[in-house]
Amino acid sequence: MRVLGIDPGLRLTGYACVHAPDGARGAGGVGGFEGYEIIEAGVFRLRASRSIAERLVELERDLCEAIERLRPDAVAVEKLFSHYKHPTTAAIMGHARGVVLLAISRAGLRLVELGATEVKKSLTGNGHAKKSQMQDAVQVRLGLAMRPEPADVADAIAIACCALRRGERIGAG
Amino acid sequence: MRVLGIDPGLRLTGYACVHAPDGARGAGGVGGFEGYEIIEAGVFRLRASRSIAERLVELERDLCEAIERLRPDAVAVEKLFSHYKHPTTAAIMGHARGVVLLAISRAGLRLVELGATEVKKSLTGNGHAKKSQMQDAVQVRLGLAMRPEPADVADAIAIACCALRRGERIGAG
Repeated sequence: MRVLGIDPGLRLTGYACVHAPDGARGAGGVGGFEGYEIIEAGVFRLRASRSIAERLVELERDLCEAIERLRPDAVAVEKLFSHYKHPTTAAIMGHARGVVLLAISRAGLRLVELGATEVKKSLTGNGHAKKSQMQDAVQVRLGLAMRPEPADVADAIAIACCALRRGERIGAG
Repeated sequence: MRVLGIDPGLRLTGYACVHAPDGARGAGGVGGFEGYEIIEAGVFRLRASRSIAERLVELERDLCEAIERLRPDAVAVEKLFSHYKHPTTAAIMGHARGVVLLAISRAGLRLVELGATEVKKSLTGNGHAKKSQMQDAVQVRLGLAMRPEPADVADAIAIACCALRRGERIGAG
């Protein structure tokens, strides 16, 4: 099974396509990512010099190209959470997330929504892990030669891994 | 000049296409909407039984059809404002607004962003007018036989009128 994890933003949107072979059963607790393979991971960089409307067009194009190229079985994003510090930041993030949900739904792909705490806990054991801890955990759990940079990539990898593991547990893989 | 005003939301999105003849010069202050004509106004009703992702697909389709049918010279929306009461509400509204901005930009249309206070003031003289006052003002200023319902339609009409009047003042009409 192949999942595309997305961490939406209007400057950087992290993405990661991760494959887990059918035999790779995730154990309970932390870790259990043996056999997981990153097909492709990176960020869509949206030009800060452009208007929000123009950046949304770039985001849609980049994401649709990635879906076409990577052909995931499902796409995973974090759930909306209720403790944003700044409402305006939340509204702007919502613009990017809206375009991501639109592209997923229009492509007929299954959408998996995961709580931020669940994602953090499944990689680090700590539901409130910091960004740098997530980067370290993603490197170790997936046996990567380098630390994933920027943090948005690590988050996208973590989201995809968490969705795959949940899919396996519920027998959807 | 013809402007499509949009009031984005994930349950109801108000829209109104308003035409102002080149000769219709908006006076300063309140009012000055003589000669303004509503070509079409209404709401896109998004089904509450559907997921947010599915509703965004419906919204995109409804809006693209309206743009195709009404062929506006510009599309007007309210600016993001910074005093949302609930960050989650702001994030959800952002999803709808993001899809609206995407559709406008992709269609190559000019986007006009107006402050909520400016819109309210230009119709009622009061930058903090309530929804019901906006409905009354829209009916009176545009000489409508009926009060526009729901309030989302009145807001969309007001946004379009305000954008048209500003366009005339700056000579863009």
